[in-house]
Amino acid sequence: MEINRPDVLEEVSSVFDRYEHALVTNDVAALDELFWASPHTLRYGATENLYGYDAIAAFRAARPATGLAREIVKKVITTYGRDFATANVEFRRGGRTGRQSQTWLRTSDGWRVVAAHVSLLA
Amino acid sequence: MEINRPDVLEEVSSVFDRYEHALVTNDVAALDELFWASPHTLRYGATENLYGYDAIAAFRAARPATGLAREIVKKVITTYGRDFATANVEFRRGGRTGRQSQTWLRTSDGWRVVAAHVSLLA
Repeated sequence: MEINRPDVLEEVSSVFDRYEHALVTNDVAALDELFWASPHTLRYGATENLYGYDAIAAFRAARPATGLAREIVKKVITTYGRDFATANVEFRRGGRTGRQSQTWLRTSDGWRVVAAHVSLLA
Repeated sequence: MEINRPDVLEEVSSVFDRYEHALVTNDVAALDELFWASPHTLRYGATENLYGYDAIAAFRAARPATGLAREIVKKVITTYGRDFATANVEFRRGGRTGRQSQTWLRTSDGWRVVAAHVSLLA
């Protein structure tokens, strides 16, 4: 299995950037689009554990739209073959360091996050 | 792409159980074996961000061997095709709830964790 095929890495980097922009601008439609529409999808957030696409979408819809800006200080995207990838970043927000981990899958609709975990460094 | 093929799900569930047993018994050799031996591998822990297999192995070797017991209270393993999987659990340790996310890849040596994120719920 080829790691970090340049074409695949470019695709995932591009969709990752799209997700990051949607996050900091609270573009809920884009955030929803980029998560896999499946009951298997899950997202562990700093303060909540969400199981299934519907729970994640409900959380997005209810979330305050302010204070979302953050600075990414380290980013590692790795692709495995043509259809799988992981994206891990360290970010700074409000003086604290956080980490965001995503697993991405190429679906028939495009690249989608199938699992995510966000936390603040203790 | 078939989600949760029974044979693949059984394989990943088995190797996940092996990892969990190694974790709570501090079987460092088994923990090292089950992480992908690659500079791309990363592990975000509750208090540290580790990049590359060598950094993770050094952390394991230096870690106190006590207080590792935990109770898994929820587990979701999902497989994507034959070669990729995610394993996410909620656990309890010392009165707190934690979350562990792993992305698993089938390599020529067997299933390996390519990325992991562990955190305590805020």
